[in-house]
Amino acid sequence: MAAVDELIERHQETLSRALTALTERDYWSPYPEFPKAYGEGAPAEAKAAFEALLGTTFELPGQPAAGEPVATEASPFGIELGISYPRADVDELLTAAAAARAGWAAATPLARAAVCLEVLARINARSHEMALAVQHTTGQAAAMAFQAGGPHAQDRGLEAVAYAYAEQAKLPATASWTKPQGKRDPLVLTKEFITVPRGTALVIGCNTFPTWNGYPGLFASLATGNPVVVKPHPRAVLPLAITVRIARDVLAEYGFDPNTVTLAAERDREGIAKTLALHPDVRIIDYTGSTEFGVWLEENAKQALVYTEKAGVNIVVVDSTDDYRGMLNNLAFALSLYTGQMCTTPQNLLIPRTGISTDQGDKSYDEVVADLAAAIEGLLGDDARAAAILGAVVNPGVLQRSAAAAGGEYGDLALAPRVVESAEFPGATIRTPALIKVEAHKPDDRAHFLTECFGPVYFAVAVDSTTDAVDLLRQSVTEHGAMTATGYTTSPAVEHELVQACLDTGVCLSLNLTGGVYPNQTAAFSDLHGTGANPAANSAYTDAAFVANRFRVVEVRRPA
Amino acid sequence: MAAVDELIERHQETLSRALTALTERDYWSPYPEFPKAYGEGAPAEAKAAFEALLGTTFELPGQPAAGEPVATEASPFGIELGISYPRADVDELLTAAAAARAGWAAATPLARAAVCLEVLARINARSHEMALAVQHTTGQAAAMAFQAGGPHAQDRGLEAVAYAYAEQAKLPATASWTKPQGKRDPLVLTKEFITVPRGTALVIGCNTFPTWNGYPGLFASLATGNPVVVKPHPRAVLPLAITVRIARDVLAEYGFDPNTVTLAAERDREGIAKTLALHPDVRIIDYTGSTEFGVWLEENAKQALVYTEKAGVNIVVVDSTDDYRGMLNNLAFALSLYTGQMCTTPQNLLIPRTGISTDQGDKSYDEVVADLAAAIEGLLGDDARAAAILGAVVNPGVLQRSAAAAGGEYGDLALAPRVVESAEFPGATIRTPALIKVEAHKPDDRAHFLTECFGPVYFAVAVDSTTDAVDLLRQSVTEHGAMTATGYTTSPAVEHELVQACLDTGVCLSLNLTGGVYPNQTAAFSDLHGTGANPAANSAYTDAAFVANRFRVVEVRRPA
Repeated sequence: MAAVDELIERHQETLSRALTALTERDYWSPYPEFPKAYGEGAPAEAKAAFEALLGTTFELPGQPAAGEPVATEASPFGIELGISYPRADVDELLTAAAAARAGWAAATPLARAAVCLEVLARINARSHEMALAVQHTTGQAAAMAFQAGGPHAQDRGLEAVAYAYAEQAKLPATASWTKPQGKRDPLVLTKEFITVPRGTALVIGCNTFPTWNGYPGLFASLATGNPVVVKPHPRAVLPLAITVRIARDVLAEYGFDPNTVTLAAERDREGIAKTLALHPDVRIIDYTGSTEFGVWLEENAKQALVYTEKAGVNIVVVDSTDDYRGMLNNLAFALSLYTGQMCTTPQNLLIPRTGISTDQGDKSYDEVVADLAAAIEGLLGDDARAAAILGAVVNPGVLQRSAAAAGGEYGDLALAPRVVESAEFPGATIRTPALIKVEAHKPDDRAHFLTECFGPVYFAVAVDSTTDAVDLLRQSVTEHGAMTATGYTTSPAVEHELVQACLDTGVCLSLNLTGGVYPNQTAAFSDLHGTGANPAANSAYTDAAFVANRFRVVEVRRPA
Repeated sequence: MAAVDELIERHQETLSRALTALTERDYWSPYPEFPKAYGEGAPAEAKAAFEALLGTTFELPGQPAAGEPVATEASPFGIELGISYPRADVDELLTAAAAARAGWAAATPLARAAVCLEVLARINARSHEMALAVQHTTGQAAAMAFQAGGPHAQDRGLEAVAYAYAEQAKLPATASWTKPQGKRDPLVLTKEFITVPRGTALVIGCNTFPTWNGYPGLFASLATGNPVVVKPHPRAVLPLAITVRIARDVLAEYGFDPNTVTLAAERDREGIAKTLALHPDVRIIDYTGSTEFGVWLEENAKQALVYTEKAGVNIVVVDSTDDYRGMLNNLAFALSLYTGQMCTTPQNLLIPRTGISTDQGDKSYDEVVADLAAAIEGLLGDDARAAAILGAVVNPGVLQRSAAAAGGEYGDLALAPRVVESAEFPGATIRTPALIKVEAHKPDDRAHFLTECFGPVYFAVAVDSTTDAVDLLRQSVTEHGAMTATGYTTSPAVEHELVQACLDTGVCLSLNLTGGVYPNQTAAFSDLHGTGANPAANSAYTDAAFVANRFRVVEVRRPA
């Protein structure tokens, strides 16, 4: 059995650097985001490894299994996956997790952090393979699947590990307490502070970002001593199955029960998330997905801490800009990237009907909308380039909304979606965005744009004024939540109003992005993802609050 | 208007020292616990101030009021209080709190900490007056009311303020983010991280420790920017009313809306806690009291973060000791102090029926019980001394349980309670403890001792062996919760088993206390009060988790 001490030594520097990064919030990552950093042969090896998985049963040796393996995935790019995953009986899985608890709980927080960093290092080394797994389950294009599914997700995992370690290290392991008693001898006690895990943790994965959204909860719970059951989305099992297998390998190598991390694959529509979520053993739940199920978890899984990221309606307020071209290009890319299938993609662009002032002169509402439509068309004019930005449509629901938009169901089209053909993947389902003109105060329009319309459907909302836009932002974020808010303005007064509205309603704000950073992207170790202060999410990636309650501290005191 | 900057300067050193204390966990307090430290004239001044309140209406200028003032208190020492408190309409109170929010939220975390420290400093200066308020609402004896109601409660308040400040200061106010882009210019953003409060906080006070149990939540919520509505127990209003008035004075002096802190007095059995707790404005609730209402809050106040301290069954495992006399004296005092009306007082003493080994030879179960009974009788033999340790019976429920024990309802009496007369307060209701012999495995006995029997009723539980005792501790803490566990043993093996049982079930353990520290006492800045890991409480005083989620962080990012 390999020694954990060696592992601690190996990863100490990365952990220390991560802890510094958390306080500095400057750019930092130990995981290169450029595919070439992983060596010349890496892509071919990854392709071979990925292809070897197709049509087979994914092995998870040592995990309880029951019944036939399940195959529930379908590549949005149209290739045949045919990978089956072992199913497990919920009670057997939780019994195995409970049995693993004591050994993992007995490890020090530093040892657990080192094991987690080793898991992340091995995941990182297989980033090219993970990219293929993410691409063919989520529909992310290859470049994005590599970055968001690989190094950026690993960053979020490491960030959670670093916070978990820092929070557990807050109290000293032992302290001496000496209370003076005037002329008498002082009272002297020795006190130990020992972190104990909550219990078994459940991670409920999502279809679009199985690793990026799965790793914060997985690693936060694991690093704080809790066994973790990973319940992947039936359409995006492989990225988390690879993750779980790597974690189990590392755990076993270092003398821990591999059932500290398990995979709960299920048949389509089997609904084991509900069974797991209500089980008395499950004390922590991390969830990303629909508002409906997120609220159900919050209201029903009373025995557990529940961390949810649900749906929101993201907003851009367009007031004025000194870089009209930069604004249009930035928005065009933001709305195109991954077909708008990010929880952070703006949905509603609030534009004064009286127009906006720009470095290229005043632009009317119609001009802004037309210019944005043209910017998107320009960006996505070439099919190969379009496919590389859009990726593929993740599921039938998104396709249906794109079709509804195309059919004029949501309002007048300023930009109609078109079908993009992929030379590489003839079976891929790819659509460009729809841009729809609506009125801020028309009840029919409001019914459409004031709910999440997940996917490549955007609303150019004509508002009476920028003040009206800010008011609408306030109302929308308060009632419907938002993961992101974005503003374009050259006016300090408007900027002040926007900032205040975002503080009051609890949503993060990106201002005047015109370059290579987009409203829908957040970077680990610097940006918060969500706030937990509006209905879109009850927590954020990652802050102390996301981690501090996943463990508890037991004190033991004795006379010195 | 006085300047907050001056306040920050005045309290900076105390705050810094408190932050250090949190990491060191050695003894520390800025608030002297010796009454004489407050000056020779202080007791007389306090008495005059207290007596001036009797029979009057307590004024809270500027707070919304509706209807007749309410008088609901009765001194357990039998004196007439007759103090009325202004009642408020719940909606008006919450509207006033919401209106106060913006101003308080706009203050920096450091400014809020300084205001809280000024509130605590003024409360501290009035510790003698607070002692009388606490004594005559809770029944604590004068010395204890002074310490636990005064400086020790202030310590817990300051501890919460320090944690709140530390957590809010975790992210930098601004950060520069520079991401290299190979040969191209780097991406550069400026990021602001701004803490925002959750919303209005509700503190639901308890009868026995209105300040000690009230201050952690009050100051944690206040220091993180939330307006706080304080709903005192109808029998213990005055200590929190004085606290609220001082807070309002300081807030107003420094330019904040005094309705940032309000008092929600109610008629007896009016039940406004439920109305407040379910109001959508209320986003944080701190509660100390019965399990029934605590669980109701946890299950029903879904819009709020709910921190509860409920009931538990505290346990002592008696295995062996090298200081038999010290053990008996320590337990006798622990069981006598404040008539067992502390949530931390041991209730069940698990003693092997085969006896224990001690420095005074082996002692049978019967001998241990008889010797403990004698130690209690010795300690409380003198009425004046007994009254000074016991204080008075807080409410009719406790008196009823003492009477039931005296009548043999719970089992055979090893020590019968007796009535103590107070020379100072002829109307005081004072009872000594009852010690009852029961069998660990007799169903009738278990029905009595395996539920909380709040007050001076203790069970000497005959167990088959120490192993049996540890098993019973595990079962009891898991099912019924506990605020404290205590052990006496000279065996390293037994100590190991006990520690492991406490880690597994999540309860703090005091080992071999034979001197001037008692199992039911915890010191701020060093000891955790509760763990949040067993059914007795879902949180602890005070750790990062108690504070970190009371605020959220909104990020604003812009191109540099």
